[in-house]
Amino acid sequence: MYRPEIKVIDCTIRDGGLINEHLFEDKFVRAVFQAASLSGVDYVELGYKASKTAFSPEKYGKTKFSDEDFLKEMVEGIKPRAKLATMVDIGRVELDTIKPKKESVVDMMRVACYVKDIDKAIEHVNHLAAKGYETTVNIMAISTAMIPDLEEGLAQLAESRVNAVYVVDSYGALFSEQIHFLVNLYKKYLHPKGKEVGIHCHNNQQLGFANTIEAIRKGANYLDATIFGIGRGPGNCPLELLLAFLKNPKFKLEPVLEIIEKDFLPMRETMEWGYIIPYMVTGILNQHPRAAIALRAGKDKDKYAQFYRSLVSDSEIS
Amino acid sequence: MYRPEIKVIDCTIRDGGLINEHLFEDKFVRAVFQAASLSGVDYVELGYKASKTAFSPEKYGKTKFSDEDFLKEMVEGIKPRAKLATMVDIGRVELDTIKPKKESVVDMMRVACYVKDIDKAIEHVNHLAAKGYETTVNIMAISTAMIPDLEEGLAQLAESRVNAVYVVDSYGALFSEQIHFLVNLYKKYLHPKGKEVGIHCHNNQQLGFANTIEAIRKGANYLDATIFGIGRGPGNCPLELLLAFLKNPKFKLEPVLEIIEKDFLPMRETMEWGYIIPYMVTGILNQHPRAAIALRAGKDKDKYAQFYRSLVSDSEIS
Repeated sequence: MYRPEIKVIDCTIRDGGLINEHLFEDKFVRAVFQAASLSGVDYVELGYKASKTAFSPEKYGKTKFSDEDFLKEMVEGIKPRAKLATMVDIGRVELDTIKPKKESVVDMMRVACYVKDIDKAIEHVNHLAAKGYETTVNIMAISTAMIPDLEEGLAQLAESRVNAVYVVDSYGALFSEQIHFLVNLYKKYLHPKGKEVGIHCHNNQQLGFANTIEAIRKGANYLDATIFGIGRGPGNCPLELLLAFLKNPKFKLEPVLEIIEKDFLPMRETMEWGYIIPYMVTGILNQHPRAAIALRAGKDKDKYAQFYRSLVSDSEIS
Repeated sequence: MYRPEIKVIDCTIRDGGLINEHLFEDKFVRAVFQAASLSGVDYVELGYKASKTAFSPEKYGKTKFSDEDFLKEMVEGIKPRAKLATMVDIGRVELDTIKPKKESVVDMMRVACYVKDIDKAIEHVNHLAAKGYETTVNIMAISTAMIPDLEEGLAQLAESRVNAVYVVDSYGALFSEQIHFLVNLYKKYLHPKGKEVGIHCHNNQQLGFANTIEAIRKGANYLDATIFGIGRGPGNCPLELLLAFLKNPKFKLEPVLEIIEKDFLPMRETMEWGYIIPYMVTGILNQHPRAAIALRAGKDKDKYAQFYRSLVSDSEIS
């Protein structure tokens, strides 16, 4: 028995773009949109709506900015067509430049924030909902949130126009019992107001798929995943595993397997993601992956024991 | 709060040897034994006790046969020293050639079998226990077991001399709720007789570590893992993740990280294991990996969609 309320969101291009400054070829972006649409995914997130004053279009690719004309080109003529989502980061978006939904191909806007910025996220969400968009709030680094602060934020979000609020395990640090606790906590505030809970997991400890399942078991209905698990560092919950797990017959595995063999295998020769020990180390220590990112860019990229010692001794503070 | 009853068994050499016909260099076998011992692992499984009439020593490496003299060399002088385990396969071992424990460096003999062979496994276990060894029975392919047959076998095992009986997810097909069910079922029969439950997971669906944790939560106390997850195809629960998860301060992560960077990174250039789509496909279909093994040896090794279609259509039987 499947839950028809479940929505799968493919974040391949948005989250994968963190590896390569969003410098994907247009052809690849369209191929991902098409494969995900064919596989029955409900939403495909194609990038960020970043401010061009904050970020240089010289340095970053098109999916960093996700201009309306570009998005239109990416989805034009593709049938069946998943809904289209983009992400906005608090403080890195110019809301006034976002057109009303009726002039846009975008269906859903996802607002990423930390617990401390939930107030701002709600302003963004209400602004975007007034323009006609579906919205989510994705609360990042949830494994470091103070629970009373989180509860206050969830209570406010329950009164906002948001459609779904995400548990985002940015550090890939959570275990099943913590996922159960968080999803139950979100539900307590959000379900009475008709809002859904979402889950977005990173794979530092090879728990991205497992934790997504645990969130489903507790009632999360918005599920993020990426093709072949692509994403910065360890990557994300692999879409192909998630679709095989879900029982709804609308989901098809073959389009995802096809694009993996055709496009993702060659891509993995030049882009790094997956089970990589320095990211496993930041995951077990519940830390931002920045130290691992820095290590992997340098000559000591495979000095695992030394890296572990340095982070453990750094964390001995008072 | 940790459970002092928990035992960790490193299967790096035994399970990893399935990739390369057990052709590891002696130096590497010793290095693994030393690293695992230093990390606080309770047992290290160094290979099979296979019959030399059934298998040719020309073709297979020393850890296929695990002669007493060879094992002695592998562990000599290593301090601290983990207990030493070897595996015997029903019908592929000559029990009479196995010396009494007091003349051997081996501490534990693990008997691998299918549900249908539990009777024979019990004969092996009682023979080996009479010679002075600790014993386990590892019931393979548990995801295809008929539950009444399994219950009958567990009831008999409860009356045998075995120390622990394993849930072995050979196909990497199980999800958390099934792990909970199986561990509870094993416990029901085994705990009243003072026997422990073990868990051995394969990583086809990236659930090897997650399912090991779920087994721990339900009371499994014998935990199998391999360094860097090495093992045929998708491999196993990674030892480094398991040790980081366990709270017992006797476990140390650094010796494992050191051997990964020194020996496992170069080894992975020539040996394949990890998240590989054909093994993911056999996992989601709850099948023996033999089709994936065959595919990976041929020219169509990356024809994922075609492979999936062929297995799905093969499975349409009546």
